[in-house]
Amino acid sequence: MEEKAFQDYYAEDVSHCYGCGRFNEEGLHIKSYWDGETSVARFTPKACHMAAPGFVYGGVIASLVDCHGTGTAAAAAYRFEGRAMDTEPNLRFVTASLKVDYLLPTPLGPELVARGTVKSVGKRKVVVAVEVLAEGRLCARGEVVAVKMPGAMKKTPGN
Amino acid sequence: MEEKAFQDYYAEDVSHCYGCGRFNEEGLHIKSYWDGETSVARFTPKACHMAAPGFVYGGVIASLVDCHGTGTAAAAAYRFEGRAMDTEPNLRFVTASLKVDYLLPTPLGPELVARGTVKSVGKRKVVVAVEVLAEGRLCARGEVVAVKMPGAMKKTPGN
Repeated sequence: MEEKAFQDYYAEDVSHCYGCGRFNEEGLHIKSYWDGETSVARFTPKACHMAAPGFVYGGVIASLVDCHGTGTAAAAAYRFEGRAMDTEPNLRFVTASLKVDYLLPTPLGPELVARGTVKSVGKRKVVVAVEVLAEGRLCARGEVVAVKMPGAMKKTPGN
Repeated sequence: MEEKAFQDYYAEDVSHCYGCGRFNEEGLHIKSYWDGETSVARFTPKACHMAAPGFVYGGVIASLVDCHGTGTAAAAAYRFEGRAMDTEPNLRFVTASLKVDYLLPTPLGPELVARGTVKSVGKRKVVVAVEVLAEGRLCARGEVVAVKMPGAMKKTPGN
């Protein structure tokens, strides 16, 4: 059986994210998994996701850091509570603060590897450091301060 | 005659950015202008650009901050040099560091207004603070450290 990504455990009403939601048909479908104590997301940008010809757009790298960070935050919170991601209550985090340092122009074409390290887990807040590599080279370093999704964001309009 | 956006002065070989390039057919086409001493970009996310239903995806807000920041950096550098944006040498900035604080869930639907304030202009580096508002409410606050585009990024592959 294929391993489910962190994002595939999100509740149905909050699985529409452009970056990682399984119900967003036009989205990026970023998917994160544990790899021992760190987390990993592998993502290959499309040809249009360029900054200049041959290089990945910074906003797409920011999106990768963002969704890998919030996904890792949710997974870390479940781990912290000692329960599996398919148990209730469902945990979903959003980004309070995002920081990305672009260290090298990132080549467009190769798969990007985002690796997350959980820096702290609190009751409401999880901090995740994310490194983005292409062909084994560290291209960007980010940090996501993730907080539990506000209740107002969980209501599907019309519900 | 319609006013040209900062991004529309970028040289042809570096106008393919997914966020703001006029030659990127699938891109966001973020466009920035002076509004007195600050700069402004007005951008309406698409329906798919959601975080959860009804709210804008943080990666799209980061992209708006990013391209409005680098566009404002270029415009500020021309101003600093006392010359118009259609004069040579052409200036083009990329993001060295991006920071976004998400203050409120940003409603999806209304036009977003990004307002840039130039914090500093150096020989290679320009720092721009960007506020993102929806319906007059401050939803996100960002900062872009922009640096002159490295020479390697200006070469179209094959050239």
